Amino acid sequence: MARLSGLRLIMEDIATSMGSATGREWLNLGIGNPADIPEVSDTWRRMTAEALDDSFGAVSCRYGPSRGLPALVDAIVDYFNGRYGWDIGPRNVVVGPGSQMLCFIATTLFTGPGEGRDTQLVLPMTPDYTGYQGLSLVTGGITGVEPILQRREERTFRYLFDMPAIEGLTDVGLMLLSTPGNPTGRCASPDEIHRLVAAAETHDVPIMIDNAYGAPFPRIGAAAAPPLRHDRVINVFSLSKTGLPGERLGFAIADERYIDPIVSFMANSTLHAPQLVQAALARALRTDVLDSLVDLEIGPFYSRRRKFVESLLVDHLPADVAWRLHEGEGGMFFWVWVDEEWFDDLALYEALKAKGVFVVPGRHFFTDPEHSRGLGRHTRQCFRISVTPGTGTLTAGIEVIAETLGEMRAGSTRPRDNG
Amino acid sequence: MARLSGLRLIMEDIATSMGSATGREWLNLGIGNPADIPEVSDTWRRMTAEALDDSFGAVSCRYGPSRGLPALVDAIVDYFNGRYGWDIGPRNVVVGPGSQMLCFIATTLFTGPGEGRDTQLVLPMTPDYTGYQGLSLVTGGITGVEPILQRREERTFRYLFDMPAIEGLTDVGLMLLSTPGNPTGRCASPDEIHRLVAAAETHDVPIMIDNAYGAPFPRIGAAAAPPLRHDRVINVFSLSKTGLPGERLGFAIADERYIDPIVSFMANSTLHAPQLVQAALARALRTDVLDSLVDLEIGPFYSRRRKFVESLLVDHLPADVAWRLHEGEGGMFFWVWVDEEWFDDLALYEALKAKGVFVVPGRHFFTDPEHSRGLGRHTRQCFRISVTPGTGTLTAGIEVIAETLGEMRAGSTRPRDNG
Repeated sequence: MARLSGLRLIMEDIATSMGSATGREWLNLGIGNPADIPEVSDTWRRMTAEALDDSFGAVSCRYGPSRGLPALVDAIVDYFNGRYGWDIGPRNVVVGPGSQMLCFIATTLFTGPGEGRDTQLVLPMTPDYTGYQGLSLVTGGITGVEPILQRREERTFRYLFDMPAIEGLTDVGLMLLSTPGNPTGRCASPDEIHRLVAAAETHDVPIMIDNAYGAPFPRIGAAAAPPLRHDRVINVFSLSKTGLPGERLGFAIADERYIDPIVSFMANSTLHAPQLVQAALARALRTDVLDSLVDLEIGPFYSRRRKFVESLLVDHLPADVAWRLHEGEGGMFFWVWVDEEWFDDLALYEALKAKGVFVVPGRHFFTDPEHSRGLGRHTRQCFRISVTPGTGTLTAGIEVIAETLGEMRAGSTRPRDNG
Repeated sequence: MARLSGLRLIMEDIATSMGSATGREWLNLGIGNPADIPEVSDTWRRMTAEALDDSFGAVSCRYGPSRGLPALVDAIVDYFNGRYGWDIGPRNVVVGPGSQMLCFIATTLFTGPGEGRDTQLVLPMTPDYTGYQGLSLVTGGITGVEPILQRREERTFRYLFDMPAIEGLTDVGLMLLSTPGNPTGRCASPDEIHRLVAAAETHDVPIMIDNAYGAPFPRIGAAAAPPLRHDRVINVFSLSKTGLPGERLGFAIADERYIDPIVSFMANSTLHAPQLVQAALARALRTDVLDSLVDLEIGPFYSRRRKFVESLLVDHLPADVAWRLHEGEGGMFFWVWVDEEWFDDLALYEALKAKGVFVVPGRHFFTDPEHSRGLGRHTRQCFRISVTPGTGTLTAGIEVIAETLGEMRAGSTRPRDNG
């Protein structure tokens, strides 16, 4: 926990480079921020201002319960029961300072040294969000399961869950995945989710499903299935991609046996989540503001934007390079695989950086990219592009990526200069 | 971490009782909230509204650095360098979602299982803030050192640090104390702080000094010394008692060797603290708003209020009961010791609750109240009164406490009814 992961070092490198006074205009296609949609930020500004006017003294100037602001907890209960026909109550909910903190708490509670055996945090499919790799307090406390790689059409591929490998694991403490996934955009199908939950039951552990890009909000991607209510599932939701990443608000819904210890951990570690933003979210859930925002702004924006970026990639990436896109059903990213012997993600990162463009090298999304069992060089042949920069940045950046791929290919076929 | 401490159970009991529809008007002298001072909440509302108008999109709608919002980190650096003549830079600062989270992170990083030995979180003087007892992920990971008890004038007493006991400990990982202290109001003198820091040097560990009630803000208590800058000291500051407990904001200042791993832990666990309140604090530090608030409102308010509560206690508590107040130099509480064989803090708690009054029983502020080495029954003979309820509540509540103490004394001298 005291060290930064490889990806965070890259992020720091990007921040430092962009902050330096080179006079150069950087094209950052590596960012994780949600898109800057004026209607979205305006709406949250209004919700926050209304919460400030209405209840600043009551929420900001007093301590609150570790489970969450009662007005928000009740709003969450009513929203999910109304929308999905669930029968949850306040005891099934805990609000935290960001969904990552809730994942950290669950990892600390449900994995690690135990009576008689040490258990692991299991990511049932890597690549997945690199932040998961920092969640364990125990060195080597995380196991990532590599997927089965399936080539689909000429320019697409897809990862499938390696169910026998997942079922065959020992010493599982908690399973965790994002869907729609970061970085791939893969949406786990209802059937896949059911098989993962069955595996969790076999292992007698909870499975945490991170809906940061999923339903009911921000619901980026038509294929994002409704969250599954199940006694093994801890569903985690975030306000970050719905527009408020800077305020760190997330919540979890699950059975009391999982929520109760998380609430106690909250009380012991950070007391409770910040409350003004909780009041703002309660307002947005109680009115139709949040649903309207998703239906009218966020959903259509990302739908258009994903199509735009996909056509940029298809139009510009060199035809004589064997690149493929992961079938992108949702989320904020495209995941590009360059299926060529000469390709290396870090070499691309450096070459692009020299031209003022940033993408995220793919290896960091795997837990052990240097020692892949089944994927071979694939773990170092991918990179991630965000769809959230402006269209001008995306267009110019993807042109540079295309040009650089062409140069890398040419360099690889040129005789080596031994002078 | 998955369980609630004894004190949190009491707090839940209070919340549940006060929330129940009994028609009874409860007098809660157990609360930990800062006083409701209209000028204070108005000022923070204004600072927050200005931050909202100025920078909502830039701070709330984007992720930020794990160290803290650069505008706030820079404001902290300039404020402390200007006020105290320090020479800190941004690398000496980390902002967190509440100072308790920073204490939790430091405890997790600097104590627990290690190479060759397990180290402890050491509280060099108990009683101290009960929240410290929930900070360790390891059962039995916290050691509290009992103080030397010194009777002073007829109605006062004082705890002194047991320096030989502190120096003689083995397997120390981190030392932690609040000053001014919760619950006692004890302000560690500069000489005491220097001796504690020397002990930390001997143990080769950092010492975390929690200035939640101290200088430079909220500076509750004339005896609150300026924070000490020293390469062994991690100073922690909180915005809670300065008026914003619900927004969870704190920060730490120390050498990079301590701050760097805390920043990494922040990145891995919760990414960063909420940012709108960071922007509000940056404004308050940059202008003279925060200093004025402390000088003109918070300081005078608590000074008056402490005198008021002290005179209520002196005037009302029964003369024929051997009660004493800890020399209260600062902070939000009075710590009452009833030096009588018949007195028990939990019995008082229950008797008062039956009359609609809440205080906090004292035993929970000790780490092992049932097995005191040197203090005997004293660990169960104290209770805590907050000075922050309204004056009417304080007056009525202290009258009930006085009456109840009289009844407890009478009951103890009455022949036991064996019918």
